Amino acid sequence: MAEDKSLPEYKYVLHIDDMDPSKQELILNNARNLLDAYPPGDADIEIVAYGPGLRLMFAENVNAPRMDSLAQSGVRFSACDNTLKGMAKLLGEEPKLNPVATVVPGGIVRIGQLVKQGYIYVKP
Amino acid sequence: MAEDKSLPEYKYVLHIDDMDPSKQELILNNARNLLDAYPPGDADIEIVAYGPGLRLMFAENVNAPRMDSLAQSGVRFSACDNTLKGMAKLLGEEPKLNPVATVVPGGIVRIGQLVKQGYIYVKP
Amino acid sequence: MAEDKSLPEYKYVLHIDDMDPSKQELILNNARNLLDAYPPGDADIEIVAYGPGLRLMFAENVNAPRMDSLAQSGVRFSACDNTLKGMAKLLGEEPKLNPVATVVPGGIVRIGQLVKQGYIYVKP
Repeated sequence: MAEDKSLPEYKYVLHIDDMDPSKQELILNNARNLLDAYPPGDADIEIVAYGPGLRLMFAENVNAPRMDSLAQSGVRFSACDNTLKGMAKLLGEEPKLNPVATVVPGGIVRIGQLVKQGYIYVKP
Repeated sequence: MAEDKSLPEYKYVLHIDDMDPSKQELILNNARNLLDAYPPGDADIEIVAYGPGLRLMFAENVNAPRMDSLAQSGVRFSACDNTLKGMAKLLGEEPKLNPVATVVPGGIVRIGQLVKQGYIYVKP
Repeated sequence: MAEDKSLPEYKYVLHIDDMDPSKQELILNNARNLLDAYPPGDADIEIVAYGPGLRLMFAENVNAPRMDSLAQSGVRFSACDNTLKGMAKLLGEEPKLNPVATVVPGGIVRIGQLVKQGYIYVKP
């Protein structure tokens, strides 16, 4: 019986919660290296950001062009709503997010859901 | 047949080994967000601290009141004895721990035991 | 039927991508504590370094003697070739690696392979 190739074999959830810009670069490098390492469609990659790491997904983040390119290759970006709401309280309004980002209710809950679905967790 | 609801569906091991106070806040936020995200009793959460991260579990840590509240909601705190013994050598005596903390022989061994039991590992 | 004891029961992949020398010490402490916690041969440990964390595996790194000792106890060291190639571009030549290190095509891909083989992922 033919193997079902509709499901990606390698599923990764990459986690960022640091403010450090070098971590932002590193996590995007990681996603790119994963895309390059596997045949097209074999790597399913989701980047989950919460806490100070949510800055990666701000609209004005300097890495936005790279994120666009990764999103076009299928990488997903998940932004924590708990963090957004906390920032909105401090700033008076919610920060504007990069359009490639999808808001999820809780970043850490999202990570748990993905790991339970067989995603490999890596924290750069 | 009724599903066995005696076992929590979502089990998380949260790992701290950084001295950075912002990581201490973040890991406690993570635990709180997990408790809030699941029905009562569905989330089993253990925080494991070793190395410089053990400071979270010192009796005088500024986050002690939040830790009390989390412990009352079922969150467990595990403190690495390898680290405690190393600190005792440097300081002349073992640091006094928060009473909510349980000493485990090795923090990294404890993490491994929990992951083998199906806990989802997250490193804030 | 006798249990197959040829396979280590506890397999860990430890991940380093930070430049911070304290993280280098911590990850080596972790490996040592794991070796000490299990009967000889029961712990299979691989340290994977990429990005700024690759410095741990440079020939001139101050921790080289400890790494020799760990390697003699069976700990494996994997150095990311993507990172090496990037550093070679910046420096004009590839940094010289500790002879205990094995070059792998991609550090993050290696982590994924190990996790899929049942390794417990820990990021000190």
